[in-house]
Amino acid sequence: MTNRPLILISNDDGVNAQGIRVLTALMQQLGDVIVVAPDGPRSSTSCGISPLDTLYLKLLEEKEGLKVYQCSGTPTDCVKLALEKVVPRTPDLVVSGINHGDNASVSIHYSGTVGAVLEACMKQVPGIAYSLKTRSQQCDFRPYEEVILQTAQYVLENGLPKDVLLNVNFPEVEALKGTKICRIGRGVWMKEMVEADEGEGSFRLSGYFQNLEPESEDTDYWALDHGFAAITPVQLDMTAYRLFGSLKCLQK
Amino acid sequence: MTNRPLILISNDDGVNAQGIRVLTALMQQLGDVIVVAPDGPRSSTSCGISPLDTLYLKLLEEKEGLKVYQCSGTPTDCVKLALEKVVPRTPDLVVSGINHGDNASVSIHYSGTVGAVLEACMKQVPGIAYSLKTRSQQCDFRPYEEVILQTAQYVLENGLPKDVLLNVNFPEVEALKGTKICRIGRGVWMKEMVEADEGEGSFRLSGYFQNLEPESEDTDYWALDHGFAAITPVQLDMTAYRLFGSLKCLQK
Repeated sequence: MTNRPLILISNDDGVNAQGIRVLTALMQQLGDVIVVAPDGPRSSTSCGISPLDTLYLKLLEEKEGLKVYQCSGTPTDCVKLALEKVVPRTPDLVVSGINHGDNASVSIHYSGTVGAVLEACMKQVPGIAYSLKTRSQQCDFRPYEEVILQTAQYVLENGLPKDVLLNVNFPEVEALKGTKICRIGRGVWMKEMVEADEGEGSFRLSGYFQNLEPESEDTDYWALDHGFAAITPVQLDMTAYRLFGSLKCLQK
Repeated sequence: MTNRPLILISNDDGVNAQGIRVLTALMQQLGDVIVVAPDGPRSSTSCGISPLDTLYLKLLEEKEGLKVYQCSGTPTDCVKLALEKVVPRTPDLVVSGINHGDNASVSIHYSGTVGAVLEACMKQVPGIAYSLKTRSQQCDFRPYEEVILQTAQYVLENGLPKDVLLNVNFPEVEALKGTKICRIGRGVWMKEMVEADEGEGSFRLSGYFQNLEPESEDTDYWALDHGFAAITPVQLDMTAYRLFGSLKCLQK
């Protein structure tokens, strides 16, 4: 490896997904790259880890400035394994994605793409999750390349506070209207369980997302619905400090 | 069912774990109870869901004021399925646990116990996650019964703001010193990957937790280390609002 920045990449769609290949090519413009990604789809695994499983790591590709590994675990397993057993030094940046499907609003909680970067954040390595609002596995990622390079370059140059990551979501458009710094909008998944064909008591996940505040221009979902890339700073600390007063009656 | 409160219970240790049986008996003192819990251990599945799997739901037990189901999915799958296909009306309270192992500090992000309650919170149902700092599968839960009943009764009577849940952690003690309203402390898991016996490139999760602020008396881990139950209000919104100013340069 050289004295260029070191960038670790993971995702939750698996090492062969189109999105991670595009992201890898982009990051190679900015530094040396190590990819450690799941060996297949691990969508919606959140920050899940695999304490009961043996994890298998396999080197798939090695050339100047690039190493690509697959791992049998979740995105979070991949980042733990990469940071502890793969990288020659602490990476300057961890990026995840580009996810096929957005991770805005409450979907951030289910996302393995975001989970990978949350893990980096817990280890005090700055990170960015990238997702595209589409369900297609074959996408044109060119409209988003400039924002991806700009945000990654920004974090390489400026870092991030130790408990914060960036969650970047793109709408599926031919040309972005721009970028917006957003908060996480309120929303809810509806009608998520449908009866399956495997007999009584069998179900499959389904459903649709309902934006609970479609008029709020400061939310990630508003940005996506109006053609903007949504850049959301996300913090590890989920404490609801505003409730300390009202809960004092439970303190003894 | 009666006009008593309706309480939904899940966990991540599985429907047969000691902790969920104790919690079920306690909640029966407060209302009618429906249990929908995983059919086996699902520790550390976070808010993960199973979009690629068929989910199987099976009624295990039914008597006056109690129904117990097992589900083949994650804790979050269980709560989604319960709220959409099992309960006769929206529950007044969702509780999860009692987990064998604490879910304080960063462990909150990995926890399936907390994941189950986060799912309830996303569906605007008030909830509490209970966990005990132990690795034993056979525990004496009697020292914690009073706090469990008090906190559940508090939420049944007062509710919670729509985007907040309670995360309650207990130290393993013969008698609690008291309860503390806490923030989530900063900490990090160390040395998490060990080489496994299944050949080169095989690993297992391991490691230990390091408290990064052991002197901070307002944290959940301080409470646990000093014999108190830690009650932490946790919110869905992870937006790092304080960064909006410094990130404006990325907005175009």
